[in-house]
Parts: sequence; structure tokens; C-alpha cells
Amino acid sequence: MVLDKVNSPDDLKGLTLEELLALAEEIRSEIIRVTAQNGGHLASSLGAVELVLALHRVFQSPKDRILFDVGHQAYAHKLITGRKDRFHTLRQEGGLSGFTKVSESEHDAITAGHASTSLAHALGMAIARDLAKEDYHVVAVIGDGALTGGMALAALNKIGELGKRMLIILNDNEMSISENVGALNKYFKELQIRKWVQDAEKLGRSILEHISPKLFGLVDRAKEAAKLILHQENPFYAWGIRYIGPVDGHDLKGLIHILEHLKELDGPTLLHVVTKKGKGYKVAEADPIYWHGPSGFDPLRPEKVSKGYTWSQAFGDAVTELAYLEPRLFVLTPAMREGSGLVRYSVEHPDRYLDVGICEDVAVTTAAGMALRGLKPIVAIYSTFLQRAYDQVIHDVAIEALPVIFAIDRAGVVGADGATHHGVFDIAYLRTIPNLQIAAPKDALELRAMLKKALEIGGPIAIRYPRDNVERAPEGAWPEIPWGRWEVLKEGTEAYILAFGKTLKYALEAASDDPRIGVVNARFLKPLDREMLKALARYRLLTVEDHQRMGGFGSAVLEALNEMGLKPQVKVLGLPDRFLEHGSIPSLHRQAGIDAEGIRKALAEMGVPPTYERA
Amino acid sequence: MVLDKVNSPDDLKGLTLEELLALAEEIRSEIIRVTAQNGGHLASSLGAVELVLALHRVFQSPKDRILFDVGHQAYAHKLITGRKDRFHTLRQEGGLSGFTKVSESEHDAITAGHASTSLAHALGMAIARDLAKEDYHVVAVIGDGALTGGMALAALNKIGELGKRMLIILNDNEMSISENVGALNKYFKELQIRKWVQDAEKLGRSILEHISPKLFGLVDRAKEAAKLILHQENPFYAWGIRYIGPVDGHDLKGLIHILEHLKELDGPTLLHVVTKKGKGYKVAEADPIYWHGPSGFDPLRPEKVSKGYTWSQAFGDAVTELAYLEPRLFVLTPAMREGSGLVRYSVEHPDRYLDVGICEDVAVTTAAGMALRGLKPIVAIYSTFLQRAYDQVIHDVAIEALPVIFAIDRAGVVGADGATHHGVFDIAYLRTIPNLQIAAPKDALELRAMLKKALEIGGPIAIRYPRDNVERAPEGAWPEIPWGRWEVLKEGTEAYILAFGKTLKYALEAASDDPRIGVVNARFLKPLDREMLKALARYRLLTVEDHQRMGGFGSAVLEALNEMGLKPQVKVLGLPDRFLEHGSIPSLHRQAGIDAEGIRKALAEMGVPPTYERA
Ligand SMILES: [Mg+2]
Ligand SMILES: [Mg+2]
Repeated sequence: MVLDKVNSPDDLKGLTLEELLALAEEIRSEIIRVTAQNGGHLASSLGAVELVLALHRVFQSPKDRILFDVGHQAYAHKLITGRKDRFHTLRQEGGLSGFTKVSESEHDAITAGHASTSLAHALGMAIARDLAKEDYHVVAVIGDGALTGGMALAALNKIGELGKRMLIILNDNEMSISENVGALNKYFKELQIRKWVQDAEKLGRSILEHISPKLFGLVDRAKEAAKLILHQENPFYAWGIRYIGPVDGHDLKGLIHILEHLKELDGPTLLHVVTKKGKGYKVAEADPIYWHGPSGFDPLRPEKVSKGYTWSQAFGDAVTELAYLEPRLFVLTPAMREGSGLVRYSVEHPDRYLDVGICEDVAVTTAAGMALRGLKPIVAIYSTFLQRAYDQVIHDVAIEALPVIFAIDRAGVVGADGATHHGVFDIAYLRTIPNLQIAAPKDALELRAMLKKALEIGGPIAIRYPRDNVERAPEGAWPEIPWGRWEVLKEGTEAYILAFGKTLKYALEAASDDPRIGVVNARFLKPLDREMLKALARYRLLTVEDHQRMGGFGSAVLEALNEMGLKPQVKVLGLPDRFLEHGSIPSLHRQAGIDAEGIRKALAEMGVPPTYERA
Repeated sequence: MVLDKVNSPDDLKGLTLEELLALAEEIRSEIIRVTAQNGGHLASSLGAVELVLALHRVFQSPKDRILFDVGHQAYAHKLITGRKDRFHTLRQEGGLSGFTKVSESEHDAITAGHASTSLAHALGMAIARDLAKEDYHVVAVIGDGALTGGMALAALNKIGELGKRMLIILNDNEMSISENVGALNKYFKELQIRKWVQDAEKLGRSILEHISPKLFGLVDRAKEAAKLILHQENPFYAWGIRYIGPVDGHDLKGLIHILEHLKELDGPTLLHVVTKKGKGYKVAEADPIYWHGPSGFDPLRPEKVSKGYTWSQAFGDAVTELAYLEPRLFVLTPAMREGSGLVRYSVEHPDRYLDVGICEDVAVTTAAGMALRGLKPIVAIYSTFLQRAYDQVIHDVAIEALPVIFAIDRAGVVGADGATHHGVFDIAYLRTIPNLQIAAPKDALELRAMLKKALEIGGPIAIRYPRDNVERAPEGAWPEIPWGRWEVLKEGTEAYILAFGKTLKYALEAASDDPRIGVVNARFLKPLDREMLKALARYRLLTVEDHQRMGGFGSAVLEALNEMGLKPQVKVLGLPDRFLEHGSIPSLHRQAGIDAEGIRKALAEMGVPPTYERA
């Protein structure tokens, strides 16, 4: 095994091309093996193996900084930067992160997870470098999907203006997470067909002669066309960025060669590299959408695994049906069709479906524009990504109280994706916004009821639900819901657990058949059910939520009680004031003390200990 | 007066060109007259007079939707859409908004204030229109500065892909608020010099022949150059947007003519219009930065007015001095040099100053990149604009606890700019973030102490201060501050007012010489001074803050008391759960009941009525 000899990127320097090629295959096997076990970003990491090896062969990490945008294509990078022995712990509690993470390795230049940040990071680093009169390379690897994100484009604009030395690798694998979206992507596709070569003069013929013929060998067909359109439609030049490409991202020799030359250039340069998602693993090449992030499989007999019926699917089924009842309904997603359960919807209602690409802010404001013209848009978005459209929620939706519904998926801790992806701030950042109502259903049926009612109400409403499975609700079922009213699921004589969303199941488990403990489905956070809260204030109250304790549901309850001048004994359970790392969701809940056991412990501290011992 | 005859845009249709030109001058006078009185966005509104008239002459508002990005260039639009009689109330309490506002007029297509939203709005509207099989025009007017914002670029990308019919007017006045930033701006500047005409074929020669020679008459000089670079560096074509221009934005006849023709085109079209900020008002043309938003002046003898020493200047002076002491200090601004008090700093420390343009997210993540490479960046940003970088604060700064300081200006209500600009959510959205500390100084000296200490501490720290004047602190003064400790400013025997930031002065006024009322400068919100809070819990406590009551400082106090098991009588004063409109800051504070009178009233409700009657 060549990999055995590679304990740091330095060890690549002495390898022959044959050894490097063998290493690429070994790395692929290892990625498939561990991802099959732990789940993970298989297809994108397989696609970037040669690119990663070429970068580490040519540049000197950690002195040179190699930034991976999103960080989900960096498994090869992890394997050759001293982490191969821990690679089997990928995405496991206490193990390696699924993304690059500054605190995990000196070779991880940025902590990533969300898309489109690497160019602004790189700009800051290049400025810092030049200010300190240091001399190292800053290399940002960014996908075609991430590049169409607003902050990447805006950063590119500034990079072009300042002219700082840096290398941007456009890793163009023809798709963002769900499919090609955005004109720039279309443009990149055309470029591939043309295979024309940019910037030949600047690089000099001598360089081109040295470059593997394979790399630029496909020019022929469109050579004349290329001459005509050379520069013509290339937006990067207009932005002051030197553009080179596209080149074959799986031609290791060619990549090394061209990177060696690009290293010498000053100013910002973009190398357009074309890669294949899932490269080297047939099923993943054939269906890179499914194999983008499988949760586990048999590497020898890879098959799609149904993960059971999820909240995302429950949402997708509900809106698919609702769209038949409400012709003004429209669903938007920022590049998360599969993740948000919208495949069926997008097929049945293609004219009322829009994937705006990886730009959450555009999704929200486009929805606002629709609402201003009579549509009833639903923005389907993960909690963690709604953070990227916070101002748009306030400025474009809430001020005029527009009828936009936010279907907030992955609310609460999300498990293996870790700190960057936990959706644990939304209650705090949303409940301070006037005009916006906030709810969380206890099951798929209640989700349907809330969605239907929210469409009728006609103001901005956020409905949050977790990353989890849920029991399927009957098709066509649209129960009425008393808006703004909590629901007592179990009466108690001494204490009530007020649970918002997912934690309700823990509450029921904790209360079990203890007659002293009541359980309330506190499904509306804003407006809060003050009437019921007042009635319950003669009991001890325990609030529990899958969200930061600070500023969340419990905090809203404390505010309301204080305003009403009521002073029951209250205990607030929620997530601690630190970033939780990756781990299984039940384990994270246990750590935070918001699971059934944590609730029982809290009740005991409040003077209502369990009546019998449990295992 | 022609304006007397214009009660709606329809009335423009019958006017002769001469009358329209006279109207333009009348509108200019009116804008100058009212802005001199009330303050307002003078220069940008003067620059857009002809453009607004041409648009309303050619299009049919409100059927056609004309969207003004930011909305601060729309005074002419307000004057001819039935609001001339109320125009003198501009930016006054109960009067017209300084921006376009959906709830103010059917002619205001969007509620604006923050930059770069109009293209996403327009996309949503065009989709809604086509879905409903309606037939009207969607026209978005966006400045060169706003166009470089990430969400505008990302929306443009999607617009190009979908090919929806809409007209984008690029109102290029050569500057965003402070100065040209970004390569795209540089590019637009070059275009102006070249004055080349795009898309001639598509429009057809017949159209070109009809167009005023003045409009395209300046081509001569660079005609040959233009031939060479025609299409070459134009990014819009690459994005699927038809590009036409640049044209003279003050040639009313020419503008009307070209708009008449553009109206007939399908698909997305961008018309590049060049205007002069402050057009027609000499002082404003000469110094459009100052006259961007003057707060009042004598229209006949316009002179710059010193607004007194502001918190912004106090911050600017402090960082200018600190930068001599700390060579790693670096200051970033998203296009708000003047507003953030950074003119002096940018002159004295040009190599450690960066204006990234109107992209707050890039500002924060660039700062993160700098912090990762050893710098100590300070992001100077308005509270309302930090909402646009919320995810970057969490994802790029807080997770790794990077030493980035957020100097949050305009925290609290901001007065005449109104609902879109009040900085009244930051406490709620920031305090839920782990690793981030939050403080608010009572005066300029304390601001200096906090900044200096924050640089030493080395984690993310937010320091918020209001839009207000403040007493100048002595140069070179760097008092020590006991980090995390509140300060008792006045002892009391019955109740304590806990004031965070600006409201402290109201608290002192309310407590006056009443020995029963104590006053605490609760300058640290996170971490909270639990020790002092515990000691004070035997008194009645009144918290007061210039921020939403929901989720703010008072809420943090309630949480802490509850966790400590303390149950004093607490009353929380803050802003109500609705969007406050524009008005003077003292008046808004009075309405919200957080001024001295409101505090006294609250104390009375708590059982500590004033000991003597006040006027
Ligand atoms: Mg991609
Ligand atoms: Mg401008």
C-alpha cells in the first residue's frame, strides 16, 4: 500500500507518478469502505481525489493554505494529512468531522460546512499574508454550485479588484447537490463542450508544450469556434480574474504540471477543472444525486436504502397534495430538492416549483416578490441555512407581513454533520421578529394541519420540524387545528412538561404512567398560548426543546410568565451554550440532557423524582 | 407649475417634452427644499429624476411594477405618484417614508431600505405574473453599488437562466455610498469612457436611428477600441442577460425613446444608464458623499453641518489610535466608511483598512480569514446590516471562536430611516450564539476600554452602540475595564434599574435624586454579571434596553435569575413586538416607554412611584 507510506503531504513529494496513481486508487477504496460504514459525502470526495493529490504534491501544506469550500470533498485530503488511522471514525461521535475543521488539523485551512465561504476566507488570508510580508500560497477549491452563491460572487468581484495573488480552483462536476441550476452552470457546461484554452499567451507556449496532451487534447473539434469566442463570454476576465481551463480533473499528471506553472503567477487566477462526481465507483457515477450523501451501504453490493418515512417526505407529500387544493401555492428551495422531500412535488407541480440554487437569500426575497403578486410561497429550507437569509426574512417578508411560509427542516441537532449544520438557533433569531408566527408539529398529521391553516392565515409563519423519521399521515387528511392553542396530552397533578416539537416524545416517555407528571404539546411558540400557560402556572413547569437553551422556547415561557406576574417553579431544558460536535442525534440529546432520562433527572431536581427505578 | 397637474403617473402621458423637462426642474427644487428641511437621500434622488420620469412616462404603474432597489432614489417617484401634498412630511413621524414602502402607495412595488433585494423580488414577480398568465412589465432599478451585492449577483444568475421577461435598469452613478468598490464598478467606469453600444443588431438599426444622437453621440473616441472589445468583457451576456448601454441617464427624450423600444423585448434585458449623483444641485454634484444623506441645510446657502461628535466618530478615533498600538488590528467595512466614522482611520491606516462593498457576508468571512492568519480584524457594521451576515458570524467566526470584533453601530432605533433600519434585533440573534461575548459601553471612554480589552481577549466579541452623539473621550486614554462586571452608578434602597447601553441615560434621569432607586450600567450582556445580579435580586429590578423586548437583555436577565432560582419582582422594558416606523429617536423611545418617563411609569407600576411630581 502506498498509503502506508503517506503520513503527511510531504510524503507525496517523493512518489513516482505510478505510485501516485496507485495511491489514488487506494484512497478511493478507503473512501468507499468508510463511507459504506459511516455514511458521508461519497460522490464529491471520489470526484476530487486526483485534484487533492495534485494540490498536495505541488503546494506545501500547512505553509500553503488549501481551502476546501463546503469541505465535503476533502476525504482524500484527510487521508493524506495524517488522519488515515482515524479515518474510520469519520462522522462518528468523537471521530473526524465530515468537513474540514480548523481545530482538527493544521492542514484544514478553514472550518467549513456551508457553501460559498472559501473565496472571502481566501481574500482575508491573502491580505493578511501580504501585510505580514509572508510568502505562501492561498488556494481555494470551490464547486460550480457553490460559486453561484451570492457571497462567492461578491467575493470574486472584490478579489478581482484587489488583484491579490491566489489560486481559485473551480471544481466543476456539473452539478450542485441536486442538479444544475443557474446560468453560470449552463455556461460552464458549454465551456466543457468547447474545450477551449484560455490565456495561452500569458502562460507562454513553452508551458503549453509541457502540458500533457491529454489535458488539452480535446480542443480540436471546437478550435475554430473557440477562436471566435475566446474571451468573449468569459465573465472572469471582466472581473479581473485570470481564467485558465477547462482541464480534465482526473488527469493527475496534467494537473500537477499545470499547477506547477500556475504557482508562479501573480494576481488572482482561476483554474477551471472538470471532474466527475463519484469517479471510480460505478453506481455513484451513474446516480450522483443519491450517492452524494448515502447513509451507509454494502460496498460490494451497493444499493439504495430507504431511510424510512421522514419529516421531509411528510412535508413534501403534504405540499404536493395542498398544491392541488390551493392554486396559488408555490414552493421554493435553495438547491435542496432531495433533502427537503420535494422530488414528488417538483414532478407533479413543475410550474409551481423553483430551485434558486445555493442562495438562500434569493430564495426568501423571490418568495417575497411572489407574495406581493398574489402567490402563497413556501420556502422549504433547513434551519441552519435559513441563517443565511435572516435579513431577508425581516426586511423583505416580516415588515410587510407577507404571506410567506417557512418550512424549516432539520431543526434541532442533525447528527453526523455536526456543529456547522445543527439547526439550533432558529427559535431565538426568529421569535424576536414582529409579525412572524412560529409553530412546531408533533406528528405528520399536525404538520399537514399547520401547513393548511398557515396558507389560510396569510402572514409569515415558520413551521419547524426535525431530521427524523415520522409516521406517515393518511393522504387527504386535513384536520383542523385550533391556531395558537397548546394541547394537553397527559394530565398531571404536580408538574407539567411543556415540550416544543421533537422533544415531545421524550416528555411522554419520561412522564410515562406517572400520574403526577403532565405533558403539553406546546406546538405554538408565537403566539404563545398564554391562557393555558396561566392555567398551568400553579404546577411546576419544565420546558424542553431541541434548541439552544439561551433565547429559545423556555426563554419565551419565562418572559410570558414574568409579564403575567406569575412565578411558578420553572426549569428550562435545552442545548448548552457551546457548539455541539457531530454524533448521533440520540447521543447528542442525551449529552444535552433533553432526552427522557434528562427530563426525569430535571424533574427529580424540581422535587418530582421518579416513582420507581428504571433500567 | 407642471407638478400641480400631476396627480398620478397617468398625468405624465399627456405632457409635452418641454413640460416634462420643466417638471424635472420643479421636482428637483422640491426635493432640495424638503430635504433641506427634513434631511434625506438628496444626491441619489436628484440623480434619478429623468430616469423616474421616463419610466413613468413609458410604463403604466401600478399595473406595471417599477422596483427601486434600496428605495432611496425614489423621491421623484413619490412626487408624481399622488404624494406631492404629503412630500413635506418626508421622514417625519407619521409622514412619508424615506424609502419605497408597499403599505404607503400602490405605486411602491417593494418595501426597501437595504440594498440588492430588487432583482430577487423582480424574479418572484415575473414568475407570479407568468403563472397567472397576466401581462405587465416588471422593471427593477438598481444602482452599481447594489448590483455588486451577493444576492443581486446570485439573482441575476437565476434570472439569466430562467429568461423571464423583465427590464433591469442599472443606474450607474459611479459610486455606491462611499466610493467605487469592486471590480464590476471599475468595469462600469471603463464602459462609460468607451461609450460603446451593445446589441445593435437585436434592436435593429431602425431603433438606433430614432434614438437621440446625444444618447449615443459620445462613442467617437473609443469607437475602434469598442469594436475590438464588443461583447468581450461584458459579463451580462455570459449570464444570459441582454445588455444595452451605457446611455445618458439625464437625456429624458432619449431615455423615453429607448424604453419604448425595450418594452417590446422578451426575456431579461439590462439597460445601463449613467447618471450623476446630485444632478442639478452644484454642491451635491461636487461632493456627493456628504450630500448623499445630509440631515438638513439652507437650500440657498448649502453648507456642511457638523452633527456633533458621534459614537461612530468615537469608534473611529479609538481604532485609529489603537492601530498604532496593535499592528495586527485591521478594520473592515461593507461600504460604510463615512457612516461608521472610518474616514480618519482609512487615511491613517490605509494598508489595514478594507471596504468590501455592499456585501456584509463577505466582510465577516474575510475577517474570519484574516483572523485565521493572525490578524485582529474589527468589522465595523450597522446593527441592521449585520443581519445580512448572521450565518457568517455563526459559521465562520463563532464555531472556531476566532478573534473577530464586531463594532455594531446604529444599535437601537435609528430615527428617520425607519423600520428597515432600526437595529433592534441584534441582542436576540447574537446572544444565542456560543463563544460570542456581547457588551455595550456607557460612553466613549468605556467604548475605548472595551475595544482595547476585546483585542487582548481574542474571541469573538460584539460591542454595540447607538446612533447618537457622545462626549469626546481624551486621546490616549485607555482605562482598564473589569471584563464581565457591571457597574453600580447609583445606589438604591428599593429598586434597581438595569440598563444596557443607551437607555442608561434615561435610567439616570428617571432615578434622579430618588434614594430608593438604584441604577446599574449593565454593560456586559454575555457573559452576564451573575454575581451582581444575585446581589441585586433582593430588590425590585427593572431592565431597560433599546431593543425588542422579546429575546433581548431583559430576557437574558430572566433566564439567569431563573437558573439561579431567584424570584425578585422584575419588569422588562424594551421595544414592543411590532415594527416601529420612522420618527425622531426620542419620540420612538417615548412611544415604546423606554425613556425616563416610561421608566418612571414602570417603577410606579412596580410599587415605587415617583416621590414628587414632575413637569
Ligand atoms: Mg458541483
Ligand atoms: Mg451607485
